[in-house]
Amino acid sequence: MASKRELEELKRFCILLAEGSGTILREYFRSGVAVETKADRTPVTAADLKAEEYLRSAIMREYPGHGILGEEFGTVNEGARYRWVLDPIDGTKSFICGVPLFGTLIALLEEGVPLLGVIHHPVLGELLIGDNESCLLNGRAVRCRQCRDIGDAVLLTTDPRDVPVYQKEARFDELVRRVKVYRTWGDCYGYSLVAAGFADIMVDPVMSPWDSLALIPVIRGAGGIITDFGGDDPVRNSSSIIAASEGLHGTVLEILGGDSARDRS
Amino acid sequence: MASKRELEELKRFCILLAEGSGTILREYFRSGVAVETKADRTPVTAADLKAEEYLRSAIMREYPGHGILGEEFGTVNEGARYRWVLDPIDGTKSFICGVPLFGTLIALLEEGVPLLGVIHHPVLGELLIGDNESCLLNGRAVRCRQCRDIGDAVLLTTDPRDVPVYQKEARFDELVRRVKVYRTWGDCYGYSLVAAGFADIMVDPVMSPWDSLALIPVIRGAGGIITDFGGDDPVRNSSSIIAASEGLHGTVLEILGGDSARDRS
Repeated sequence: MASKRELEELKRFCILLAEGSGTILREYFRSGVAVETKADRTPVTAADLKAEEYLRSAIMREYPGHGILGEEFGTVNEGARYRWVLDPIDGTKSFICGVPLFGTLIALLEEGVPLLGVIHHPVLGELLIGDNESCLLNGRAVRCRQCRDIGDAVLLTTDPRDVPVYQKEARFDELVRRVKVYRTWGDCYGYSLVAAGFADIMVDPVMSPWDSLALIPVIRGAGGIITDFGGDDPVRNSSSIIAASEGLHGTVLEILGGDSARDRS
Repeated sequence: MASKRELEELKRFCILLAEGSGTILREYFRSGVAVETKADRTPVTAADLKAEEYLRSAIMREYPGHGILGEEFGTVNEGARYRWVLDPIDGTKSFICGVPLFGTLIALLEEGVPLLGVIHHPVLGELLIGDNESCLLNGRAVRCRQCRDIGDAVLLTTDPRDVPVYQKEARFDELVRRVKVYRTWGDCYGYSLVAAGFADIMVDPVMSPWDSLALIPVIRGAGGIITDFGGDDPVRNSSSIIAASEGLHGTVLEILGGDSARDRS
């Protein structure tokens, strides 16, 4: 286990990483001279590559023995005790559309378990770092809020058109019907809002570990619960995510997980 | 008609107004010590009142003969040639949830016709001002983009749960099915994204003139088209809004407006 002092050093390093990649992403954000559909992906790819190159070289310089998993440049030091998982732009469509809710995800795993997670929204100037025990937003401790009534809850997701994917027996519609507010301020910003106590539930089908590993220490650090739709630890199975405050996660799981959650008990 | 010089003076004054109310709103944004559901509306109401008070007193000081229509403090100088329509916080739920996409709407009408419109996102530092002929984003001219294929379009709306209200014969579902991206980055930020060329279509049921009058000179100034679902000028009937780039508005109207649009021709 990393000592308390090592952990603090790693946290400081995480923040430097996020700030460095944030400077790169801000340069590319809304920089397209003409915004044409056919050119849509170019600035994103360039921004993604530049930011991931920066993150990798900074990690390799500081911690040459650590492993890295990144979306663009594959894996290094696969068997290392400490491994970094990088996603420079989570929320590509948000980035392309000039919407500043996208973010950079940085996770540090120790023996496969998420030790630290960073969600950084460089255009908004919001940086969350969690270590499963605590969560800081721009250096200030934040907690999930204590909403216990689903009728008072703010529910977020990313893409309304993904809903049919996890819409078993209209259970998602049931969830939408019961909450107070429902919006698609999604991608990683949804998790930031849950961790910072501004929203109660974030639900997502997640395609790759890049999208979920950094979220875990942030949500848990803020006192929230994060599982897949079956109630399992998302480290093992990240094909879907429910992140919610303690008082609501069980209700959400019951509505969405239904039989599969009960079957396992 | 306002002379070119008067218009430029009024524009400068609009920007001062927006900056002044923005300073007030930034102080209130995310300022709740504990974010409890029962206290949700309090900071919004306080922010709304403070900002509208500021806007009204600034207008009355500079243009005592002008009329004002505001959400919180009613109407003054109803018969005036120039009338201001104020909405300090469009996107109340966004404001409450700590999401910086909310905005301030300021419209100036001349004989009931929108002459100038401002959409200001004070936390994002994005200020759009339109005069039906041109549209500036932070002082730089912007235009709607030239997307002509609905399959390449980015569609925005505000609240997915409002959809049934304007979902005649599943036409909104048809629109969602045909576009490339669909999100609820809505309220006035949706119109800002269309005007600035980052999205193509914003669709909303609109409840009051506060919500639409400022949008008209902005969208038209950026070369876009703004009507209600029947294709009519939203100055007269603002119970629904379609704002879209020139190449797509007809297609959207055809999908959504259906018979009612055809009946009138």
